[in-house]
Amino acid sequence: MSLDGKATKPHERLAQALSDDMAAVNALIRERMSSEHAPRIPEVTAHLIEAGGKRLRPMLTLAAARVLGYEGPYHVHLAATVEFIHTATLLHDDVVDESGQRRGRPTANLLWDNKSSVLVGDYLFARSFQLMTETNNMRVMDILANASAVIAEGEVLQLTAAQNLATTEDVYLRVIRGKTAALFSAATEVGGVIAGGTDAQIKALYDYGDALGIAFQMVDDLLDYGGTAAETGKNVGDDFRERKLTMPVIKAVTQSDAEERAFWKRVIEKGEQHEGDLEHALDLMAKYGTLEATRRDAIGWTDTARAALAKLPGHPLRDMLDDLADFVVERVR
Amino acid sequence: MSLDGKATKPHERLAQALSDDMAAVNALIRERMSSEHAPRIPEVTAHLIEAGGKRLRPMLTLAAARVLGYEGPYHVHLAATVEFIHTATLLHDDVVDESGQRRGRPTANLLWDNKSSVLVGDYLFARSFQLMTETNNMRVMDILANASAVIAEGEVLQLTAAQNLATTEDVYLRVIRGKTAALFSAATEVGGVIAGGTDAQIKALYDYGDALGIAFQMVDDLLDYGGTAAETGKNVGDDFRERKLTMPVIKAVTQSDAEERAFWKRVIEKGEQHEGDLEHALDLMAKYGTLEATRRDAIGWTDTARAALAKLPGHPLRDMLDDLADFVVERVR
Repeated sequence: MSLDGKATKPHERLAQALSDDMAAVNALIRERMSSEHAPRIPEVTAHLIEAGGKRLRPMLTLAAARVLGYEGPYHVHLAATVEFIHTATLLHDDVVDESGQRRGRPTANLLWDNKSSVLVGDYLFARSFQLMTETNNMRVMDILANASAVIAEGEVLQLTAAQNLATTEDVYLRVIRGKTAALFSAATEVGGVIAGGTDAQIKALYDYGDALGIAFQMVDDLLDYGGTAAETGKNVGDDFRERKLTMPVIKAVTQSDAEERAFWKRVIEKGEQHEGDLEHALDLMAKYGTLEATRRDAIGWTDTARAALAKLPGHPLRDMLDDLADFVVERVR
Repeated sequence: MSLDGKATKPHERLAQALSDDMAAVNALIRERMSSEHAPRIPEVTAHLIEAGGKRLRPMLTLAAARVLGYEGPYHVHLAATVEFIHTATLLHDDVVDESGQRRGRPTANLLWDNKSSVLVGDYLFARSFQLMTETNNMRVMDILANASAVIAEGEVLQLTAAQNLATTEDVYLRVIRGKTAALFSAATEVGGVIAGGTDAQIKALYDYGDALGIAFQMVDDLLDYGGTAAETGKNVGDDFRERKLTMPVIKAVTQSDAEERAFWKRVIEKGEQHEGDLEHALDLMAKYGTLEATRRDAIGWTDTARAALAKLPGHPLRDMLDDLADFVVERVR
């Protein structure tokens, strides 16, 4: 581990502190994404894996294991497993969302085709299960198999709940747990399990990942109505145009009068959107202060994440995880 | 187990002999395909699982375990696992193939949408891994994770190899191992492992499943050029129209002269097909006897399957598995 103090953002400092581990993870990913017989597999995978994501999820696994004093080697396998599951879900998400861009590049389904995205995603899921079996640890397998089920269930739930005005904050929470928090919490939990942590430590790591993931996704949904394309890689109102019910809208719908409800019904449920509708939606969210309320929710989840961390032993990586939780909501503070 | 002698086909006799076990498998499948929060999941799954497939794969697992004297309960979990993996691949296949019909009914991607097929498939994959972890047996997890990778790799390989005249018999074998035989052999192998069979017995079970799966797929490919819609649920020449290189065509391409090669290049690689092309293709296959040669190959694999079985202890179920191998090629004898 090396720390030269130059990196300023918490995930950059984590990447520096974990640079040796991350080099091992990247080597393992490259080795396991290969396929002797089907070169399409590493082509598609490399397009996504080398597109410069932050590798947040594998770093969470590595940091969780190291905070509890683990010396390896299986945290590397688990970190690669988590990144493979994440990459597989991205490939399938792009097919489901009919996306054309991710991380500023054309998506795999556009460069190749939907078939390749579906099947290469399946291959990476299978590879992730191979990697986790190598740890010979039933408990991590159980955690990651459960997380995979929660992820898929959350995505199916989003299919049916997204455009339904009856969607409550509870359903939204379940959707974003599936979409984001389930893999964050599995990532930190398996790090703790492989390190042989106590039940209380493993629970704290789970709680940290869960709350961090929820805060992370809430901020993402919030920025969709207030961030800039430079910050988010998306345009203001993308979720609105895609008729996705996220927290700021759910809070506005809950408080709406009859006329406002008819507006939401038209633009979200029926998908009839006209010039000026996004502006009207923003006005309604301002009227009820729902962006501000969502912001407070996100900060609340960050506090939960940091409170969980406080139960772990002192460690420089623990401090970076603490900073990371703070950083997630910094963009909306 | 009950045997009343009325069933005549080997898979029907297997279903009778394994009826208690299969009832337990079906109950477990119904329990695990449920989702408290996303009712779309059991809807889509039920459409496919209750469409009346033969449940060949789970029966292979049950029979393999029982032949070696296993008394349960984990053969049931493994049989359900195998059926879930199979169902997940069918859901994804229909998206990849843009199919409209399966087992005589509209496909899930047509009744719902591609999104639901992709995500419910992912959910079933995750559920299958949950089920196998419950056996607490690392070796079966390893076998099933590997089989899942081989299946996905074979499907990707088929994407790129199917319309390429350079595809050899070896590549074809790899494709159909991925498509069919990998799950057959994993199904029989895990049955042997959970029963605590000797290495030789487990190897024999693997070899039986592998050879049975290859024979099964070869007969399927053969019937595409010679069966009736009633036998196959497909029309003669479907593979030809979809430009899929299967064994009878590969053998004809290999022996083709320049003019014939130009024909294959046009209809398969370029996909320019006209009236009378299917008839000409059938003439070329007749000229080189490639349907007959494929038939002999399939029978050869059946012999391999039966020779492997002969290494297992005597058991009524072993005899039914032997009949099953014979039955697979009976349609083309």
